[in-house]
Amino acid sequence: MAEAVDGCVRHGVEAIGLWRQDVAAQGLDETVKLVTDAGLRVSSLCRGGFLTSGDAAALDDNRRAIDEAAALGAPCLVMVVGGLPGVVPAEPLGAVDRDLAGARERVAEALAVLAPYAGERGVRLALEPLHPMYCADRAVLSTLGQALDLAERHPVEQVGVVVDTFHVWWDPQVLEQIARAGERIASYQVCDFLHPLPQDVLLGRGVMGDGVIDFAPLTAAVAAAGYAGDIEVEIFNADVWAADPDEVLARVKARFGELVESA
Amino acid sequence: MAEAVDGCVRHGVEAIGLWRQDVAAQGLDETVKLVTDAGLRVSSLCRGGFLTSGDAAALDDNRRAIDEAAALGAPCLVMVVGGLPGVVPAEPLGAVDRDLAGARERVAEALAVLAPYAGERGVRLALEPLHPMYCADRAVLSTLGQALDLAERHPVEQVGVVVDTFHVWWDPQVLEQIARAGERIASYQVCDFLHPLPQDVLLGRGVMGDGVIDFAPLTAAVAAAGYAGDIEVEIFNADVWAADPDEVLARVKARFGELVESA
Repeated sequence: MAEAVDGCVRHGVEAIGLWRQDVAAQGLDETVKLVTDAGLRVSSLCRGGFLTSGDAAALDDNRRAIDEAAALGAPCLVMVVGGLPGVVPAEPLGAVDRDLAGARERVAEALAVLAPYAGERGVRLALEPLHPMYCADRAVLSTLGQALDLAERHPVEQVGVVVDTFHVWWDPQVLEQIARAGERIASYQVCDFLHPLPQDVLLGRGVMGDGVIDFAPLTAAVAAAGYAGDIEVEIFNADVWAADPDEVLARVKARFGELVESA
Repeated sequence: MAEAVDGCVRHGVEAIGLWRQDVAAQGLDETVKLVTDAGLRVSSLCRGGFLTSGDAAALDDNRRAIDEAAALGAPCLVMVVGGLPGVVPAEPLGAVDRDLAGARERVAEALAVLAPYAGERGVRLALEPLHPMYCADRAVLSTLGQALDLAERHPVEQVGVVVDTFHVWWDPQVLEQIARAGERIASYQVCDFLHPLPQDVLLGRGVMGDGVIDFAPLTAAVAAAGYAGDIEVEIFNADVWAADPDEVLARVKARFGELVESA
């Protein structure tokens, strides 16, 4: 955490998106102190969600995540809603509940509980549609349109959506759904879609320019929709993780300027 | 080809979907004789498409594919429209044209040329939306709704769509789009979506029941839409390919009866 915060400061990155397990490892209070002392904004906390099983423990864990986001001053908690009950990422398929419509309905029911709780704490739930290749194991929320259908049941300050280029670039409706989203956009996340995908498709994200995505139309649409918040670069990639952090930050900043900021 | 035809006959499978390269290896005339003598229907010929580069050679090749489908008595030619120009499946990314909207527009333009040609020969072009994880390298046609938007520009007997469970099961709009498709449905293809995906995601298809798809609602929707044609089982899977063909046919028939025919 200290290394990441320091890297952001040295490279002129003004905000940082945090993950819960890293916050937990550092300690919540110490993380707050680290980012505050560094003068960084926390752009988002990742992640709540995993609500498809309908169990009460998941609701409790999401309430804790909301509390943590509030303590960090994060404007939103990114929600990865969960896949089909029984499906575990990267593990062999065991007993699975294949009722996809039912899983989606349980997400809606859980949001009805969590949205007011988040709103009372000044945190917005940011529903993240994930690429459909993760529908079974990570998120039954698969398109921006579907995320907006869910979000629009709640006040705009309580539930928004994440636009992540990796997850939505292929969607024939993406530009009109970004326009529809308007002030529902809680976060804009960028990274590229690699080809070919690596064995673990979770790690198929690349630095902008290393994959197949055209960032200009997506970025222009997000700007035209009125989004003026932080843009998060989120890259799960074994090579990037193994590389020198300063080299990564410099490369990401250059590509960001060239391919995202320019639009 | 002879082995596949013989297997269908012995196991009471009344129709067979053929692939162009197998037809070419056997010879078109000899394939016609094989399936005719066996009393099989040809449910479809796979595949035309790869139209995103806008070159004339692709149009010529598709005309040949249409002629072959007509000779085989196949009611439809399955169209895999192609990915982003420059992206080759399973090969490292080289020079790529990232203009996804442009690639999609070239597909529409090519269909305007090919649809009447197909119609004159009694063959229907069957637009197959592929899972979005293949958007870059195989098909910029990613949803059933998008396929119908394209198909509806043409007479129903000239351009239809393929509903393939593997490609569409995740789509929040799939049931309403199947209803919308109605008599545009040119083929219904079934196989399961495996978890976790194998290294080559093309081979992530499994025998029904081995993955995460609930076949009942999809099959019921296709039937309710009025589709009464052949249902094709299409499984790209290294283990299935390596198994004894009679065992595979027996297993597929059993699972088909249990999970698809029952719905």
